[in-house]
Amino acid sequence: MIKRFSVETTSRNQMIGITALVEDIVSESGVDHGLCLIQSLHTTAGLTVNENADPHVCADILARLTEIVPFEKAYQHSEGNSDAHIKASLVGFSESLFVDDGALVLGTWQGLYLCEFDGPRRRHVIVKVVADS
Amino acid sequence: MIKRFSVETTSRNQMIGITALVEDIVSESGVDHGLCLIQSLHTTAGLTVNENADPHVCADILARLTEIVPFEKAYQHSEGNSDAHIKASLVGFSESLFVDDGALVLGTWQGLYLCEFDGPRRRHVIVKVVADS
Amino acid sequence: MIKRFSVETTSRNQMIGITALVEDIVSESGVDHGLCLIQSLHTTAGLTVNENADPHVCADILARLTEIVPFEKAYQHSEGNSDAHIKASLVGFSESLFVDDGALVLGTWQGLYLCEFDGPRRRHVIVKVVADS
Repeated sequence: MIKRFSVETTSRNQMIGITALVEDIVSESGVDHGLCLIQSLHTTAGLTVNENADPHVCADILARLTEIVPFEKAYQHSEGNSDAHIKASLVGFSESLFVDDGALVLGTWQGLYLCEFDGPRRRHVIVKVVADS
Repeated sequence: MIKRFSVETTSRNQMIGITALVEDIVSESGVDHGLCLIQSLHTTAGLTVNENADPHVCADILARLTEIVPFEKAYQHSEGNSDAHIKASLVGFSESLFVDDGALVLGTWQGLYLCEFDGPRRRHVIVKVVADS
Repeated sequence: MIKRFSVETTSRNQMIGITALVEDIVSESGVDHGLCLIQSLHTTAGLTVNENADPHVCADILARLTEIVPFEKAYQHSEGNSDAHIKASLVGFSESLFVDDGALVLGTWQGLYLCEFDGPRRRHVIVKVVADS
């Protein structure tokens, strides 16, 4: 069964932690051992894993991505948000994680993030928890 | 069961929409609810999700990737296509999507693309549709 | 069942081939047809697929990533390794591959790599092989 949640972003570029939201879905699924797949339904907002402790890491990721793919570049796409499309393809739109003993498996410092590159907006994420057969 | 299809690319850098090809495989699988995994079998052509409406978005993605990873850079790899290897690792080689009610789940503006970085060539993609247990 | 292995890296930036380690896990699983998911448990080391023949390709990938995301940049994160966090999010932390006839499915030139961006360190990778239902 596909579960869905929404996130309200508040800046043009923003990484919002969604680990707890996904952990709740894993918990409610009742699955002890399996996989958890997470997908962004957008083309200007992606998903990534990164450090869950110091928020400066997310700030550094966003700042460097904006240097690599600047907003002010001349792009063909008339909506003026090609930078957001490019950044999202660089971080990717989905994550595949493991479920073990009823919990999402992440490294000690790993957190899951929605990466907003064209906010503020309401963003939609879908999640599926699949039990081992 | 693994399904396979080929795509003939016509430029060195090119994004070719493969959503319909993958949707056909999902439809033929008869799976109503499950996962669809897609993998590029190459090291100089990857896969990504991005906008399915304005083709300028793909042109902007390719142009910016070529600025980030220029063809003319001095590389050690003697085949002269290291830029293509690097770009492919940046966008990635596989996608994991959901199947619901017999259809591939994509956001309104999402399409699936083969990203050619060393064409023109014939490229091979494999697809597996897995039913929920 | 989740399997785990460790890799000792010896440089700050390094791509270490892990295809054989993952192939061993697939073989021991006894699964003939299914999926193989691989996840890095870190935030400064990722995973990617790329060329398995000429090691110059990996050297070129690492060199170019370091030009795109330089070590010496001014970052907010006090540990001084933000470049490693950013590179890892660019290549990604997980791979989803297929298993067919008891073997991992990779293209002719494809190999699987752990991408170390903040070594030398001991790194942990987890793997799950899921049989088709």
